[in-house]
Amino acid sequence: MTKRTAFFISDSTGITAQNLGRALLTQFEFLAFEHTALRFINTPQRAEHARHVIERAAERDGQKPLVFSTLLDAEIRASLQATPCVYFDLFESFVSRLEAELGVCSQPVRGHSHGMTDHEHYFSRMEAINYTLTHDDGCTVAHLDEADLIMLGVSRTGKTPTCLYLSLHYGVRAANFPITEDDLDEMRLPSVLLPRRAKLFGLTTEPQRLQKIRQERLPNSRYASLRQCEYEIRQAEALYRKLGIPCLSTTLISIEEIAATIVDTMGMEYSRLLPTAAPLYSN
Amino acid sequence: MTKRTAFFISDSTGITAQNLGRALLTQFEFLAFEHTALRFINTPQRAEHARHVIERAAERDGQKPLVFSTLLDAEIRASLQATPCVYFDLFESFVSRLEAELGVCSQPVRGHSHGMTDHEHYFSRMEAINYTLTHDDGCTVAHLDEADLIMLGVSRTGKTPTCLYLSLHYGVRAANFPITEDDLDEMRLPSVLLPRRAKLFGLTTEPQRLQKIRQERLPNSRYASLRQCEYEIRQAEALYRKLGIPCLSTTLISIEEIAATIVDTMGMEYSRLLPTAAPLYSN
Repeated sequence: MTKRTAFFISDSTGITAQNLGRALLTQFEFLAFEHTALRFINTPQRAEHARHVIERAAERDGQKPLVFSTLLDAEIRASLQATPCVYFDLFESFVSRLEAELGVCSQPVRGHSHGMTDHEHYFSRMEAINYTLTHDDGCTVAHLDEADLIMLGVSRTGKTPTCLYLSLHYGVRAANFPITEDDLDEMRLPSVLLPRRAKLFGLTTEPQRLQKIRQERLPNSRYASLRQCEYEIRQAEALYRKLGIPCLSTTLISIEEIAATIVDTMGMEYSRLLPTAAPLYSN
Repeated sequence: MTKRTAFFISDSTGITAQNLGRALLTQFEFLAFEHTALRFINTPQRAEHARHVIERAAERDGQKPLVFSTLLDAEIRASLQATPCVYFDLFESFVSRLEAELGVCSQPVRGHSHGMTDHEHYFSRMEAINYTLTHDDGCTVAHLDEADLIMLGVSRTGKTPTCLYLSLHYGVRAANFPITEDDLDEMRLPSVLLPRRAKLFGLTTEPQRLQKIRQERLPNSRYASLRQCEYEIRQAEALYRKLGIPCLSTTLISIEEIAATIVDTMGMEYSRLLPTAAPLYSN
């Protein structure tokens, strides 16, 4: 059977259109779709190209493609709606309701949701990335006081990607610290971390999964043995419990879920990320 | 004036609800809103807590909060709709239209849009991050053949954050290479890059902006002088032109826009990122 084509169309990055469009299609996971992003459709030439691509997909599939759009330009929008497609305007109905509710007209400005609209906020995110990169894997304890979060975990539990995601998306300055075998044997943390206990968060995973990941890195080593993985995970989890450090198993969840859970658990709704964040919801 | 509160509510990470909710509010940028995310609202207890938070905001603000929701559980949804709020169900109307169009009922499964539903795809993203981290700043030329992209730029043009974003979000294995002063003086690239010209992409920026960034790093150095920044940028841009390397100025655009532009320019719609990506749209 021909897969139906789904287009995510935007006059800017396409992040919002892709996000919502894909989320909607996951409610129909038993069907197969061809996903295609058409970004920066913001000139008559690019609109013409997009029209052509949609028409070709309609012909090829023998059925109308689904179009998920956040386009704001009325002319471009109309020209795409005229193609053989099922057009979902992801903004329109909500904007009308918002206008009615707020009693004002919207002022459409394209690309603002993922553009550079708040410079200070943006640069603090970039600074958070730099901070995270220079505080990866315990490689420096300088400026540890500036960390918003100190991530713990035995080798290969996902500390680095998680810290990078947290800094890129939530503006969190996330340092990370490997737990060494000595620490595990003696059930203690490096003394530099003790005064910063409130910022600690621990990652863990299933020993079998850890073994698989380590095996790819250092095949048939002691480091990658199931026995070693089991020991490290057991000790690390006991250490988190002993010190009251919140922790999360990364076995079954994605980096997006890990990051959102940490932000939620630690009550980190950064004012520098969301300049207007309300302090209403903190744990 | 009291800011009106906007809630982004989800039974999972809240990424979709925040994304679309914020994008909608940027159409009303002249008004001020308090943004609050309520994530993982997936138990009666958490729903109760969310209700309480919404009610407090309504009392405090003296007006109904705006609620942007991707909740799927009918009971939780109904209980939040009963609070004093303006409720925007970001899924409902689209799902009904999709059901009508596709002739099937949806099978709501929460958290799938940012969950770990495709393991192979997920691990290849994690691998892309590892690749990018070990190929940062030209620190190794091993495995350069495995790069999907090789990012060029003089120091502090944003190569590292861009490469990390590309790998985290688009699964792109992005190596990055600083252009040295010797390269600029002689208008050439390291010979290791020449056979890989099709994978090269250059970043640039305005000399004034570069100076400001370098000034924070090494105040009053030759490296941070405007004259040096002007020289390096001029030579780098000439080098890109000479070698026909696509390039982008990062001065006025965000990392999301930079990454989306690169993916678009280089025609990189990765099958390992979007398992069902159609090869319809490539430059």
